[in-house]
Amino acid sequence: MPEIPEKQWAQVIEKSGSVEYKQIPVRKPGPDEVLVNIKYTGVCHTDLHALNGDWPLDRKMPLIGGHEGAGVVVAKGDLVGDDIQIGDHAGVKWLHGSCLSCDFCQQADEPLCPKALLSGYTVDGTFQQYCVAKAAHVSRIPKNVPLDGVAPVLCAGITVYKGLKESGARPGQTVAIVGAGGGLGAMALQYAKAMGLRTLAIDTGDDKKDMCLNKLGASAFVDFAKSKDVVKDVMAASPDNLGPHAVLLVAVAEKPFQQAAEYVRPRGTVVCIGLPAGAYLKAPVFSTVVKMISIKGSYVGNRQDGAEAIDFFSRGLINIPIKKAGLSELSDVYDKMKKGEIAGRYVLDTSK
Amino acid sequence: MPEIPEKQWAQVIEKSGSVEYKQIPVRKPGPDEVLVNIKYTGVCHTDLHALNGDWPLDRKMPLIGGHEGAGVVVAKGDLVGDDIQIGDHAGVKWLHGSCLSCDFCQQADEPLCPKALLSGYTVDGTFQQYCVAKAAHVSRIPKNVPLDGVAPVLCAGITVYKGLKESGARPGQTVAIVGAGGGLGAMALQYAKAMGLRTLAIDTGDDKKDMCLNKLGASAFVDFAKSKDVVKDVMAASPDNLGPHAVLLVAVAEKPFQQAAEYVRPRGTVVCIGLPAGAYLKAPVFSTVVKMISIKGSYVGNRQDGAEAIDFFSRGLINIPIKKAGLSELSDVYDKMKKGEIAGRYVLDTSK
Amino acid sequence: MPEIPEKQWAQVIEKSGSVEYKQIPVRKPGPDEVLVNIKYTGVCHTDLHALNGDWPLDRKMPLIGGHEGAGVVVAKGDLVGDDIQIGDHAGVKWLHGSCLSCDFCQQADEPLCPKALLSGYTVDGTFQQYCVAKAAHVSRIPKNVPLDGVAPVLCAGITVYKGLKESGARPGQTVAIVGAGGGLGAMALQYAKAMGLRTLAIDTGDDKKDMCLNKLGASAFVDFAKSKDVVKDVMAASPDNLGPHAVLLVAVAEKPFQQAAEYVRPRGTVVCIGLPAGAYLKAPVFSTVVKMISIKGSYVGNRQDGAEAIDFFSRGLINIPIKKAGLSELSDVYDKMKKGEIAGRYVLDTSK
Amino acid sequence: MPEIPEKQWAQVIEKSGSVEYKQIPVRKPGPDEVLVNIKYTGVCHTDLHALNGDWPLDRKMPLIGGHEGAGVVVAKGDLVGDDIQIGDHAGVKWLHGSCLSCDFCQQADEPLCPKALLSGYTVDGTFQQYCVAKAAHVSRIPKNVPLDGVAPVLCAGITVYKGLKESGARPGQTVAIVGAGGGLGAMALQYAKAMGLRTLAIDTGDDKKDMCLNKLGASAFVDFAKSKDVVKDVMAASPDNLGPHAVLLVAVAEKPFQQAAEYVRPRGTVVCIGLPAGAYLKAPVFSTVVKMISIKGSYVGNRQDGAEAIDFFSRGLINIPIKKAGLSELSDVYDKMKKGEIAGRYVLDTSK
Repeated sequence: MPEIPEKQWAQVIEKSGSVEYKQIPVRKPGPDEVLVNIKYTGVCHTDLHALNGDWPLDRKMPLIGGHEGAGVVVAKGDLVGDDIQIGDHAGVKWLHGSCLSCDFCQQADEPLCPKALLSGYTVDGTFQQYCVAKAAHVSRIPKNVPLDGVAPVLCAGITVYKGLKESGARPGQTVAIVGAGGGLGAMALQYAKAMGLRTLAIDTGDDKKDMCLNKLGASAFVDFAKSKDVVKDVMAASPDNLGPHAVLLVAVAEKPFQQAAEYVRPRGTVVCIGLPAGAYLKAPVFSTVVKMISIKGSYVGNRQDGAEAIDFFSRGLINIPIKKAGLSELSDVYDKMKKGEIAGRYVLDTSK
Repeated sequence: MPEIPEKQWAQVIEKSGSVEYKQIPVRKPGPDEVLVNIKYTGVCHTDLHALNGDWPLDRKMPLIGGHEGAGVVVAKGDLVGDDIQIGDHAGVKWLHGSCLSCDFCQQADEPLCPKALLSGYTVDGTFQQYCVAKAAHVSRIPKNVPLDGVAPVLCAGITVYKGLKESGARPGQTVAIVGAGGGLGAMALQYAKAMGLRTLAIDTGDDKKDMCLNKLGASAFVDFAKSKDVVKDVMAASPDNLGPHAVLLVAVAEKPFQQAAEYVRPRGTVVCIGLPAGAYLKAPVFSTVVKMISIKGSYVGNRQDGAEAIDFFSRGLINIPIKKAGLSELSDVYDKMKKGEIAGRYVLDTSK
Repeated sequence: MPEIPEKQWAQVIEKSGSVEYKQIPVRKPGPDEVLVNIKYTGVCHTDLHALNGDWPLDRKMPLIGGHEGAGVVVAKGDLVGDDIQIGDHAGVKWLHGSCLSCDFCQQADEPLCPKALLSGYTVDGTFQQYCVAKAAHVSRIPKNVPLDGVAPVLCAGITVYKGLKESGARPGQTVAIVGAGGGLGAMALQYAKAMGLRTLAIDTGDDKKDMCLNKLGASAFVDFAKSKDVVKDVMAASPDNLGPHAVLLVAVAEKPFQQAAEYVRPRGTVVCIGLPAGAYLKAPVFSTVVKMISIKGSYVGNRQDGAEAIDFFSRGLINIPIKKAGLSELSDVYDKMKKGEIAGRYVLDTSK
Repeated sequence: MPEIPEKQWAQVIEKSGSVEYKQIPVRKPGPDEVLVNIKYTGVCHTDLHALNGDWPLDRKMPLIGGHEGAGVVVAKGDLVGDDIQIGDHAGVKWLHGSCLSCDFCQQADEPLCPKALLSGYTVDGTFQQYCVAKAAHVSRIPKNVPLDGVAPVLCAGITVYKGLKESGARPGQTVAIVGAGGGLGAMALQYAKAMGLRTLAIDTGDDKKDMCLNKLGASAFVDFAKSKDVVKDVMAASPDNLGPHAVLLVAVAEKPFQQAAEYVRPRGTVVCIGLPAGAYLKAPVFSTVVKMISIKGSYVGNRQDGAEAIDFFSRGLINIPIKKAGLSELSDVYDKMKKGEIAGRYVLDTSK
């Protein structure tokens, strides 16, 4: 039985824009909750939005951010079943909790629950050593999986994996990843390959080209900055020149979106997972209709998607380059993030 | 064995904008074709585009228009199997022929075939007494089905039925029909009801309201011109206030489209089947993603969709008010169409 | 706030084969539970198995049976959300509770949860005036729905509706119902019709023929006792003689099952929902393979299926002939059931 | 323009049980046909059934067998489109032709066409140097693909690939292959892996165990002859002990079938692709229903499945050990086949 301290270190937002590293009490889990001793937690761009309060969605305040936390279960409420035990490894995700009984939850679409709780946004998150979480929603992490490495899977990994599932692309078909050389894109390429898909990477720069083709298994690369005709080049890069069966827009801006609707194969699907503030999807009606294409949004995964994304990672199929820092250094990480200086994903060690 | 004349009456476009009623030779079917003695043919807005040549798609010229022709098979080529016999009733549709062996045809998506032939557009259509058609693509019409009544099903009926199938809405779910009081909309309401769907009609005017609610089986009606907040009113009119599971945009304009993306239920689908020249789909990325909605284009049906749409009609589940005229009167019909004076569908009797 | 008595009337099984009508204490709901004042409860064949203990599945003992209970929520636990309120109408089903977090629950397949609790079998059921139930699993019943009429929907209705969904048959297609004239079959015919399906009734006797064709909307009837060749006659009764797209086996015995595999259309599905003790499915490998048919089992519905089945009922699309008796008369009902004397469904009034 | 001889060598069955190697005329293709100069042709067990006439299905007689032929198009009929050209590489499969317009063909289920023509069975097949084939049904083979290696893909490869698709298993899920160490099984393991599936091999013997685990990528192996409890061992070998999501029965016998229904995961699918004469599927109703499992037959693939199966092969993902002989040596190959002496697949060189 692990000893649970009364006090712990946490990064607390008390007013927008700044975060304070300080000691706070450890909360006790409610009847349907567990207490997770967070060992590592990833830092995501969403955390910056939570810090700054620049999304059209109310936050809890004061707030402890973070939603990619991996750790060990140290306490559980009376109603929590024996499928989760003290000592188990668990992950705390963006989707902290949901009602489990609305129309959406009943159909396994928990992310659409109108009462969904969001870690590090509407409830306290993982930038603390001991985080309370809803037992029904924590991800089970096998003990052979490194807790630092799995942290970014809990948000970024699940999100791209879900997007690939939503694309409807079948093994052997081709999916284009727009923004393939970025953090999400690199994960998307690896998940797609593990799912038996062929990938067509779209990004810019020779380093990214080399990485996509030689390390991440892409079948082809189109440099959108160098190409004179992106639509034509993407179609030419697909095996039969008819365009990819699906497109995953990891970094949505209006232009790539409109292009995607043009080069995607007839009957194909354009999946949009990025969330640029104020952006609009735009596509010509005529070609959308006569090509019968689908444009769809994909948000975060449900619990099952989470389990599956972790399973792919646990089998060694997904490699995510991480950089480590201490929880106390969160402000520095935010600074680098604001400056766009981060290549991989930062993971914080909560013991430091 | 029916006697086939050498000459027949037809309406021929020899230059854009005008059509001439005259006698021309009857063609002989090729090995994979049949010759259909057209009894009745519907007139569709697309025929007006074919007449005027104002679509970004090349026409055959000179051209015989028409793509909603119902008649009797009077001759067949050597390769045509015994599943189609002299004397059978058959329909000639917009999708005149396709290669039957490309990637799309192999997956029963003939409308997407790059080599698709289009009746009354890239090949001669049904505004003549004897029309040659590809045997593999004519619709089989049961003999108990009236040939005048079924004519509009061959284009308008199939198209809305296909759109409803593409919406993914299941029996018991709610589909909103935007433009419910028009010709396509009225058919969509009836097909939807026959498919076990609940319908929510969106249009304007008390006559249309009465027709939708009392004759076409709609569960609710929202008058978009009288409503102060269409999005709110449509959601309120859905059984649980969460919005319809699907939206069928029969008459697409940019505004209804953006509204549809707002009131459709999370996980819902907006299906676009109209083809306004130069129009764009536009939807906010944020709500598309967090609501996980799909926006898709639906073109015409494949052969199976056609057979199913006719089957619903043959069972008396779809009533289409038609007005009759003679084939010789096509110019008058076009004039009325240009003036927007047509309420139902015009069907031409080729013997007059 | 309703007054909750300390004592109530219940039918208690203390040893296999006999049930005792007596007063017992009213239980208090746990944190995730509600207390439902059962007004009416249906009696199902499964209750007889629970009474006799002749299924290969352990029961709670002593046991209060019943799993088709409709009533009013009179108390709720601390963790129960505001989506269920004191005074709401609610239904208690066979699937009493599940873990909501296993692989199956996460995919909305609660009936497959290894920890599923079964009303009137592994936990006390609805043959009492006040029944404790898991809040996440009770069915919400709209207030316009009569509580006596809806009781049989809670088991029989949901089960046949689920079977029809599992069949994969689409609106316009044909489903054969084997045992169409019985209680489950009559509901299946009505649900199928409401779902836009065509139905082909298979049963025996002129009364059942008349009922199926003239009251329950079947398109055709095959009398399996009078037919000289059931397989041939069923195929001939399907619209194109190729056989029904799906078959629902409401009362499975080995012979009807093998016949179903023979007359179902190629690519069709045979759904088995009855549970005769010790029976085996049996079908020839050769025709199963070359016809590519599916044979599948369908158990009870999940929560969403339940909500949908009730929704169809609430719209007046399903009529179930019920007979009423008092809760005190349960033994008499069992006697009639054992003698096979019950035509419709018995519903017990718990106030008598 | 290739020169086409008037005479060619062929293996002709003139009476059941014996085949004669002799010179016969080269046929000319009809308007919708091509003439393929077969370079290599595989030999399949079905050819032995065609030789012996021991299936309940009438053959053409005299008959040229063979349905795994890979070669070069040397002539084409007048109606054949330009998607297939003289000089293209093409494959002739079991499904020689179909009507392309029945209910099944319209839905891309050509193998279910009631008028399907079968190569080497109802029409002459590939055991000749020049084989006439329906243009719409020949498989397109990329020129980088070796014609000898691809021959077995045209029947065995497509069949197992189709079975895997029919199983509904998604990337990351587990499929058990029963008979994994045989010719079909070895291909199934490789296709499954390429599709992102985890595989659980079931067969017997240490050699097969080694091959399955170390060469064919299986995650686990269960030796059905050594196991004391196959059902228990298979479940234990699945990642979460709940059993595989799907089972592919490559070599069906009654016992493996019944076991599969027991160890398959709830909601799982048992796919049967073997065709042992006179065998029956048999499964207990109770567990089929409460586990909601599906049992389905999978026949050969449609044209699209063929293209996909060849595509996986062309990417180097499927390795099939072949043995070569001359077309003149077919009788010897049959003799070895009868004695069960063939480990891999025999491929005949038609020039010898």
